[in-house]
Amino acid sequence: PNWSERYAVRRLPFARLGERDVAFFERLLPGRALTAQEEVKPFNVDWLKSVRGCSQLVLKPQTTAEVSQVLRYCYEKNLAVNPQGGNTGLVGGSVPVFDEIILSTALMNQVISFDKVSGILVCQAGCVLERLNEYVEEQGFIMPLDLGAKGSCHIGGNVATNAGGLRLLRYGSLRGTVLGLEVVLADGSVLDCLTSLRKDNTGYDLKQLFIGSEGTLGVITAVSILCPQKPKAVNVAFLGCQSFAKVLETFTTCRAMLGEILSAYEFMDEKCMELVERHLKLSSPVADSPFYVLIETSGSNSSHDEEKLNNFLEQAMASGLVTDGTVATDDKKIKRLWSLRERITEALTHEGYVYKYDISLPVGKLYDLVDDMRARLGQSAKNVVGYGHLGDGNLHLNITAESYSHSLLDAIEPFVYEWTARCSGSISAEHGLGFKKKQFIQYSKPRGAVVLMQQFKAMLDPKGILNPYKTLPSAPEWGLC
Amino acid sequence: PNWSERYAVRRLPFARLGERDVAFFERLLPGRALTAQEEVKPFNVDWLKSVRGCSQLVLKPQTTAEVSQVLRYCYEKNLAVNPQGGNTGLVGGSVPVFDEIILSTALMNQVISFDKVSGILVCQAGCVLERLNEYVEEQGFIMPLDLGAKGSCHIGGNVATNAGGLRLLRYGSLRGTVLGLEVVLADGSVLDCLTSLRKDNTGYDLKQLFIGSEGTLGVITAVSILCPQKPKAVNVAFLGCQSFAKVLETFTTCRAMLGEILSAYEFMDEKCMELVERHLKLSSPVADSPFYVLIETSGSNSSHDEEKLNNFLEQAMASGLVTDGTVATDDKKIKRLWSLRERITEALTHEGYVYKYDISLPVGKLYDLVDDMRARLGQSAKNVVGYGHLGDGNLHLNITAESYSHSLLDAIEPFVYEWTARCSGSISAEHGLGFKKKQFIQYSKPRGAVVLMQQFKAMLDPKGILNPYKTLPSAPEWGLC
Repeated sequence: PNWSERYAVRRLPFARLGERDVAFFERLLPGRALTAQEEVKPFNVDWLKSVRGCSQLVLKPQTTAEVSQVLRYCYEKNLAVNPQGGNTGLVGGSVPVFDEIILSTALMNQVISFDKVSGILVCQAGCVLERLNEYVEEQGFIMPLDLGAKGSCHIGGNVATNAGGLRLLRYGSLRGTVLGLEVVLADGSVLDCLTSLRKDNTGYDLKQLFIGSEGTLGVITAVSILCPQKPKAVNVAFLGCQSFAKVLETFTTCRAMLGEILSAYEFMDEKCMELVERHLKLSSPVADSPFYVLIETSGSNSSHDEEKLNNFLEQAMASGLVTDGTVATDDKKIKRLWSLRERITEALTHEGYVYKYDISLPVGKLYDLVDDMRARLGQSAKNVVGYGHLGDGNLHLNITAESYSHSLLDAIEPFVYEWTARCSGSISAEHGLGFKKKQFIQYSKPRGAVVLMQQFKAMLDPKGILNPYKTLPSAPEWGLC
Repeated sequence: PNWSERYAVRRLPFARLGERDVAFFERLLPGRALTAQEEVKPFNVDWLKSVRGCSQLVLKPQTTAEVSQVLRYCYEKNLAVNPQGGNTGLVGGSVPVFDEIILSTALMNQVISFDKVSGILVCQAGCVLERLNEYVEEQGFIMPLDLGAKGSCHIGGNVATNAGGLRLLRYGSLRGTVLGLEVVLADGSVLDCLTSLRKDNTGYDLKQLFIGSEGTLGVITAVSILCPQKPKAVNVAFLGCQSFAKVLETFTTCRAMLGEILSAYEFMDEKCMELVERHLKLSSPVADSPFYVLIETSGSNSSHDEEKLNNFLEQAMASGLVTDGTVATDDKKIKRLWSLRERITEALTHEGYVYKYDISLPVGKLYDLVDDMRARLGQSAKNVVGYGHLGDGNLHLNITAESYSHSLLDAIEPFVYEWTARCSGSISAEHGLGFKKKQFIQYSKPRGAVVLMQQFKAMLDPKGILNPYKTLPSAPEWGLC
């Protein structure tokens, strides 16, 4: 079904795209205003193929000035806009709900500057994360974030959704590593906060409001970001644990023994491993464990790092925390081990419809939710799996079924949100709210906070043209269910 | 002179405190509403004794509910409020300009919770930073920030001013380590964003707006903050360099060789050392150098750390980057070395009046500003000194004279700001704008950004009762110069 039907959302009274509008955009962006149905189609559907809009126009600006002109026009004409980066989001935030004009950053892919002393990169919003990482790696640095979608996602989208990912444990969130942003506001005015300073306390930090705002407050056009030095030594250990309690104890032990060189602590359950092996033909070097752990170290001295890692592994094996494991120090094997973890999302899509939950919880309770959900759903779900960034208290709970069913959804929600709220967790740790999760914000935020968010939205985008139907819950007067 | 005269600022038309108001507050906070002149006096003057207000009332709430009641009353009666923490700020942000009621967090000094697994501390805003550090150290953690004023400053004030300090290089800014805040808004409503989650992407990150807002948007009443593990090994090296170029090269070398264990890289010029020795009777173990560098390492394995540090020192000495130096591994000597750097601010106050500048610059240009200023001022200044957090590109430029003089100020400003703006630097790296710097915001922020900040202020505090005359430039219609 059309997703606006599934979610029973009504179109807001924005203007409808007319011939004159199309003519304006074709003049402004010659050859970069797509209207042919076949060309527009892939932009209308998300990566999971779970939601689908019916936009008739995709715009591909190359410059901030062009984005500004597009938005000034749309604001004046009351035309709704859906900003889109690599379209790899998992909550329906990156595709239109109805006929919003799609504003793609695909052609805004230029590096503006890179400072080799400070490691500060300034680039356009449409740069693909993996390309940026390759670029800075050549100069002895790495991007401070890494995620499975790196081959497609845009840095602007990463910032707009405050993407977390695999390196957050070590390098912190984008709220610390993003130093500056250039943003075009709803009315087309350009907000220049594109500084490249490690520290700047002159007034309120406006850029923070746009980090994680999912394109609802402005369109990010350029990013200034602090890149850490490329570690001289990287090691990955892939281990099997016989219980979740041992996964937790292994974490505490390795955090103490690896200290400053620990750069990732990921976990997955045996069901995840089964799906990755079955659908992607990957093979695991460790078998027969209910849980698997991936530990990465990054440091400046390979012999020190190896000594630390070996000490830890000896202790973990001797005390029975870990029953089996393998260590990789060469790039190729490291990549192979990481793909077991990184490609779980992809493997799940082969199972049919996937109900995705991205939850923050106190780390000790992380897997209880998976156990409870599995018990609750019984045979009505095909799979209930848990994996994620254990070091950050972030669980990816995924439930698969042959196809979408309203009754299964009802069994999962609001149960999963109530469970999370009881533990003071977050119902979206890193994926954002987008379209699919916005009505559940109250499970993680008090009413006063949501009201304040709505005031910010009204102030920055009084006509509500930027990514409508997303992030904030619909007001009752909009007549939505 | 009275500072409101010096700066030619006019009182805004807030209500004047009446007997009925005082009676209300005495009922609400029995024994904690100070009106005796001698009791109120120390709250009216800043630590530098450079600015002085004439408040007649200090309120010392113990709970968030009390802060809420105070603000609800003040908002209704149009009474201006000056929130005050440890009153250690350097830009006149923490004391009243006229007769604003002083709202002190001194009695809000309770730890609410500490989680030993995650290292997450939740506490009231009035906890003193050093006390908190002692508290979490006993449990194997440290506070993610450290600064010279730690013995007096409050964590709420640290957050309200987005304090940087000595550990930022390693643990990042408060924008990453502060996980949650509780804030009382101007009208007395309580905004509860006091979560303790490493990751939470449910809507806009409201707490960021209050970090660094210097009490102008709300009063921070409680803080949730992520504490790093206490390092098992700490080493400090104090080195002499023969030129600033060598200070820079030493930084690049040590960043590469110390990598993940580098936790501070501070520098000071010989004039700073002279003042610290003269006024505080401290003695330096290293002498006869135009520049001094303090390098700290923190790690989980003392023999690895010492090996890294020794390799670096050998290389630095062999290549002539460093001419003399000493290393400390025991607590007492480490503290002694740190005090040479930390107590510069204090030593400067013994020199008379101090013109203080806290500048972010591209690291290569950091000391050029000091040289240029020294050449410009010649004999009219007693001292022109430079020190600071080199690793973060943050220079503390201080100019001393026997007493305040308008003509010396005119020679310094706007020269220093124009110089900084030409390098796209920040005119306040970590001290904030407060009262003294607010009119210079345009040197670091474009007009559009300042207008947006003013809109935020108007939205959150429509009557402007919270810390008036601070942070944002006065509108021309206020009739200020």
